[in-house]
Amino acid sequence: MATDRRISEVKCYFESLQKEICEALETRDGKTLFSSERIESDAGGYSIPRVLNDGDHIERGAVQYTYAKGMKLPAAATERNPGLAERPYEAVSISMIIHPRNPYVPTFHANLRFFLIDTENWHFGGGFDLTPFYPFPEDVLHWHRTAKRACDPYGYDLYEKFKAWCDEYFFLPHRKEQRGVGGLFFDDWNHGDFAQCFGLVKNIGDAILEAYLPIFDKRIGLTYTSKQREFQLYRRGRYVEFNLSIDRGTKYGIQSGRRIESVLASMPPIASWNYNWKPEKGSPEADLYDNYLRPRDWLRELNERN
Amino acid sequence: MATDRRISEVKCYFESLQKEICEALETRDGKTLFSSERIESDAGGYSIPRVLNDGDHIERGAVQYTYAKGMKLPAAATERNPGLAERPYEAVSISMIIHPRNPYVPTFHANLRFFLIDTENWHFGGGFDLTPFYPFPEDVLHWHRTAKRACDPYGYDLYEKFKAWCDEYFFLPHRKEQRGVGGLFFDDWNHGDFAQCFGLVKNIGDAILEAYLPIFDKRIGLTYTSKQREFQLYRRGRYVEFNLSIDRGTKYGIQSGRRIESVLASMPPIASWNYNWKPEKGSPEADLYDNYLRPRDWLRELNERN
Repeated sequence: MATDRRISEVKCYFESLQKEICEALETRDGKTLFSSERIESDAGGYSIPRVLNDGDHIERGAVQYTYAKGMKLPAAATERNPGLAERPYEAVSISMIIHPRNPYVPTFHANLRFFLIDTENWHFGGGFDLTPFYPFPEDVLHWHRTAKRACDPYGYDLYEKFKAWCDEYFFLPHRKEQRGVGGLFFDDWNHGDFAQCFGLVKNIGDAILEAYLPIFDKRIGLTYTSKQREFQLYRRGRYVEFNLSIDRGTKYGIQSGRRIESVLASMPPIASWNYNWKPEKGSPEADLYDNYLRPRDWLRELNERN
Repeated sequence: MATDRRISEVKCYFESLQKEICEALETRDGKTLFSSERIESDAGGYSIPRVLNDGDHIERGAVQYTYAKGMKLPAAATERNPGLAERPYEAVSISMIIHPRNPYVPTFHANLRFFLIDTENWHFGGGFDLTPFYPFPEDVLHWHRTAKRACDPYGYDLYEKFKAWCDEYFFLPHRKEQRGVGGLFFDDWNHGDFAQCFGLVKNIGDAILEAYLPIFDKRIGLTYTSKQREFQLYRRGRYVEFNLSIDRGTKYGIQSGRRIESVLASMPPIASWNYNWKPEKGSPEADLYDNYLRPRDWLRELNERN
């Protein structure tokens, strides 16, 4: 009984979050709407993949909700407690990615998930991270301030912990680069009771639009050159490399036989590779590499300037 | 001493093959040349990565030669004999990929490699495979006939064996699709003595241009629409998916810290993803899916028609 209540509470929150986020992004795009379909799966699970394709401002957006019931918890889903692998479970998740057309608007990704094995064994995971092409310090500061504000009520050390976890996760070892300027990441999270954890997750979920929309709104009107667009496509190549060869969720999705169009809805609409390309010294492109694609204490360093 | 002779024979052949293939492709492109640099590595190894970028007909081409000396044989390099892993070794390899601009010209990939651990323990690997967008049956027939002709002098069952191995390897399980129409693939190959194996490898190496150039020459002049170009970019997305999430060589390169620009020189210059896209029934795009992206006995089935 208790089990059911927790699952249904999380389902209810994630489903309305999906609706709210899609509506806000559709309003911003002004032209194109998110697709909407409900796909039933085995054992009573279902997913609602929603994709916005070829909008005026959003070149590709995917906001996906999934409720799954499984007979065997995948090993990838429980890092800290491998003893739980292969047990029956229920899982609720929402994940999203926005690939804007304008290279001044950062790509953004967020996801939240809840795994329930039994009364004692459950955990949350998730976070959000930002991948700018031509970053503005004030945007990065706003992003991280919002992240911290969402975590603070549940522990003043949480932001720092989740921020470091995010830097560690969104790293491309073969490029020796961060994916972007980070944000929050947490996994296997069940500190305190369910209400406390869910409160934190709701705070983070509610912060997603608060963190992203002001940046989107501020930069969407900037004009850009075809050279800047090319740089955006080139950097999107890194996103593809991360998702296909590093990201645990995507790897698991590819290997497990999940609906592949949902798993790969996160792919950019178009991406490029350019052999041995390097940014010109002192250029805005070099600024990204030199000053943003490495872990930094944004709040301390940027607060001093802004 | 014997060891040295084998390594130097293979080096000599692979290096001249690289030169020959680059020259033939430069002549075809007519505008752009392959870059040429020699990169020394630790322990006396070196590589010669050669890349043609943004040509008139070849949008991206990479023909790479590597001679490596290592202290620990990577597990990925010996499938059949894991006992040899972690032993010192020498390796010589040539690998190439051509991404033509015209969607009527297939993408093509080939590689050959030789691993030497000691007098007793050595093997060859390699093969070539073709990835058309708008295939012509006569081209696929020519490709496989040339493959068979290269193998036949070393055993009449070899083509069938290597063709099946190729179909097995170049498969995208998450898409339930072959990467293309296949060709030859072999690994851990040391049947018979060195001279016999090297003879087979040279036959296959010499067949690369013989297999590809007639197709290139026949199709390069065909005019194509922007819709066909879009389909090419979309299908190149599958190439990216294969290379980053399935191909053992690329995975090993990403994980092992090899020069990443060489490892990823195989990436297409530009690729696209289109959520939930499906070809129209009866279209040339559907023809590719229905009749080419599955294992077929090309020689028997197409011979009857041609």
